[in-house]
Amino acid sequence: MTPTTASNFSTADHAYMAEAVQLAERGRYSTSPNPAVGCLLVETPPSGASVIARGWHQKAGEGHAEVNALREARELGMTLSRSTAYVTLEPCSHQGKTPPCAEALVDAGVARVVYGMQDPNPQVAGRGLTRLQEAGIKVDGPLQEAACRALNPGFIKRMQTGLPRVFAKMATSLDGRTAMQSGESQWITGPDARADVQKLRAQSCAIITGVGTVLADNPAMTVRDASLALPDQRPRQPLRVIVDSQLRLDPDSRILHEPGDVLVVYGQASNERIASIAKTGAETLQLANDDNKVDLSALIAHLGQRQCNEVMVESGAKLLGALVAEQLVDEIFWYMAPTLLGSDARPAATLPFAKMNEQIRLEIIETRQVGADCRWHLKPKYLPAMPEA
Amino acid sequence: MTPTTASNFSTADHAYMAEAVQLAERGRYSTSPNPAVGCLLVETPPSGASVIARGWHQKAGEGHAEVNALREARELGMTLSRSTAYVTLEPCSHQGKTPPCAEALVDAGVARVVYGMQDPNPQVAGRGLTRLQEAGIKVDGPLQEAACRALNPGFIKRMQTGLPRVFAKMATSLDGRTAMQSGESQWITGPDARADVQKLRAQSCAIITGVGTVLADNPAMTVRDASLALPDQRPRQPLRVIVDSQLRLDPDSRILHEPGDVLVVYGQASNERIASIAKTGAETLQLANDDNKVDLSALIAHLGQRQCNEVMVESGAKLLGALVAEQLVDEIFWYMAPTLLGSDARPAATLPFAKMNEQIRLEIIETRQVGADCRWHLKPKYLPAMPEA
Repeated sequence: MTPTTASNFSTADHAYMAEAVQLAERGRYSTSPNPAVGCLLVETPPSGASVIARGWHQKAGEGHAEVNALREARELGMTLSRSTAYVTLEPCSHQGKTPPCAEALVDAGVARVVYGMQDPNPQVAGRGLTRLQEAGIKVDGPLQEAACRALNPGFIKRMQTGLPRVFAKMATSLDGRTAMQSGESQWITGPDARADVQKLRAQSCAIITGVGTVLADNPAMTVRDASLALPDQRPRQPLRVIVDSQLRLDPDSRILHEPGDVLVVYGQASNERIASIAKTGAETLQLANDDNKVDLSALIAHLGQRQCNEVMVESGAKLLGALVAEQLVDEIFWYMAPTLLGSDARPAATLPFAKMNEQIRLEIIETRQVGADCRWHLKPKYLPAMPEA
Repeated sequence: MTPTTASNFSTADHAYMAEAVQLAERGRYSTSPNPAVGCLLVETPPSGASVIARGWHQKAGEGHAEVNALREARELGMTLSRSTAYVTLEPCSHQGKTPPCAEALVDAGVARVVYGMQDPNPQVAGRGLTRLQEAGIKVDGPLQEAACRALNPGFIKRMQTGLPRVFAKMATSLDGRTAMQSGESQWITGPDARADVQKLRAQSCAIITGVGTVLADNPAMTVRDASLALPDQRPRQPLRVIVDSQLRLDPDSRILHEPGDVLVVYGQASNERIASIAKTGAETLQLANDDNKVDLSALIAHLGQRQCNEVMVESGAKLLGALVAEQLVDEIFWYMAPTLLGSDARPAATLPFAKMNEQIRLEIIETRQVGADCRWHLKPKYLPAMPEA
C-alpha cells in the first residue's frame, strides 16, 4: 500500500492521531503480549468534526481498540457512514482470539481509515489496509509513525525477529559504582528514580535477574505501584526469570512466593534441587551451554517464543556484563545518582576489557532528570569483534 | 548601602544591565587577576533613551570598564549630565594601577549609577557606592546580581577568602573510566568537548597537573585556540603548575618549553634536580607536608597569594583523588563520552573509600550536551568526616 504524503494530512488529522496515541498509552501496562493500540472515531470531514467514540486495547483476549470504539459508537446510536477511524496500528486482518478488526470497520461502514503504522509482522503487513481499500474505504497513512512505533518497541521487534526487546536497568553513582567493595550498599538513587523503575517493570513481560542478586538482596521484583494497573485491578506481574546455572536458589527466597509466575533457568543441577524449586510452584528449565552454565542467548530466544515483547534485566554486575558482552541487551536505562562512591567500589557491569577496541560505544537516546538523579536512555552500538593485530 | 527593590527597575534598566554583562564577558579570558567588568553609558531617562558609550575591562594595568566608557563618551563629545552608568560591579574607590572609577564617574557628572553587585571584598564593599551618593549621584542596585556574580566566581571567592576557586576537569567514559588497565588510551571525548576544555583553560589563572601525567603524556597544557585571545593578541597562558613531590620531572618535557610561566612544586629534592629544572626557566617551590610530599592545601593558598582567581586541575587519578579527598576542589566539569571502557579500566580519580559514609555527594549545577558527549557541572557537597562507630 502506497504511503500517503505528509502534506495530505490536515491539522485535525494530526490532532486526532495524537489523541489515538494517548488512548493507546493507557494500555501500556496491560496489553502484553498484544500491542497497545488506540482508536478514535470522528465525524468526517475533519473540519468542524466531532469525536464520535474512543477505544483502546486493554488486555489480551478482550476487545481490540477498533472494536471497543465501534461498540461505544453503536451504544450511542451513531451512524458511521461519514466517519473516519484513526488507529495507531494497521487493523488486523486475521482471526485471533477476537474477529479481525478490518472486517469490523468494513461492516460498520466507516468512510476513511487513517493508520499510524503498518502491522510490523512482514507476513501480514498491508493485508488489513488492502481489505479496507477493497471495501471502498479511503485509507491514509502512516501518520505519526514514530510516536506509534514508540508505543510497542518490543512487540515490533518480536514480530520482525521472533526475539523480545531486552533492556537493562542500571543504578549507579556518577563514577559508575553500585556498592562498596565489602558489599555495603544502600539506596543510591532517590525515590523518583525508584518510582520510574516501577514503570519499567510494569511494562515488561519478563524480568531477568541472577541468583547472586536473589541470594544477596532477597528482592521481590514485583510491580507494587497500584496506579500502574487497570482500574479496579491488581498490577499485571511480569514473569520473573532467575538465571541460576547450578540451581543454588533458596526455595524460601521471597521472589518465589510473590504474586505472578517464576521461571528458574539452570545449566546443570541435581534432580533433588530441581524438585525443591519446582515444589514452590516455579517453573524450571534447563538451558545449558557448553560450560554447563545458562545459555543466555537461548534464554532470550525462549522468552521470544513465550511471546514476551519487553524483557527487563535487573541484575548484578556479572549477569549484566555477560548479557552485554553477548550483545543481547538492546537498550539501557541508566540512573545516575550525583555521588562518588570511589575507585574501590563495585562496578555496575563486569566487562573485563583489556583493549580500547573492545569498548562499547552507546547512542544517547535521551537524558532526563528524575528527581535528584539523571536517567540516560542508551542503545549499545555493538561492533563485530576486531581481529587481533 | 540599602539595596534597591526589584520593582524599582524598568525593563530598560534590565536590558542595559544585560548588555553590560555581555560587554564584561568579552574580558573573560584576559582580565586576570582583575575581574571582568562591563559598563554602559545611557541617556537618562531610560524611556526613549539611547546608548552613549560602552566600555569593558580588557587587561590588568589598562583602563577599567567605566574609564573606557567615559573615554569613548568624551571622544564623541557627549554631555553626561543626564546619563546613567550601568556597571556590572561596584565602581572601585581605591587607587590601584589606575585611578578610582567612582571618582571618574563623579568628575564626569553622570546623574545615576546602576550597579550589578557590590565589591566582593568585605573591606571595601559599599565605599564606591557611598562616594557616588555623597556626590549627589542616584545609585541603584544590585541588579541582575546572579549574572554579574557568574562573571567572576574565582575573583569573588579570592576577595572573600584569599583562596582561588579550584575546578577540576574530568573526561571519562560513561562508566567513569579514562584508560585501559595497561595504560592504553586515546581520545575518549570528542572534538567539541576538547574545544570546550580550551575555554576552561583560557579562563584559568593557573592549571595544576601532576608529574605522572607529564611523564606519561608529555602534554603542552597551553591555550591554543586563537579565538580565545584579545583581538590581535596571542592567548594569555595560565601559569602551569606541576605537582612533583620528588622532582622526577624531565627537563626536556614539553610543558616546560611552551609560551607562559611554569611553577614546579616539590616536597623534597636534591639541589642538582632543583638546578636542572630551574635551568629551563621554570620556577621551583618547596611546599612539603609531613610525608615530604607536596602540601596541596599550602599550594592552593600559595596560588591565592599569587592573585590566582581561577585554578583548573587537569591531572591523573592520583592527584585529582588527593585534591578531592582534601576537599580542595570546589567544582568539577565532567565530560562523559557515551562509551563503556569496562570494569577493569582505570578510574578518573583515586578515591579508595571503604564505607558508604565516605561517599561524596555532588550538587548538579548544569548538565549539557557538548557534541556527542555530556558535560556535568558539579559541586561537591563535602561533609565533615563521620566519626567511626
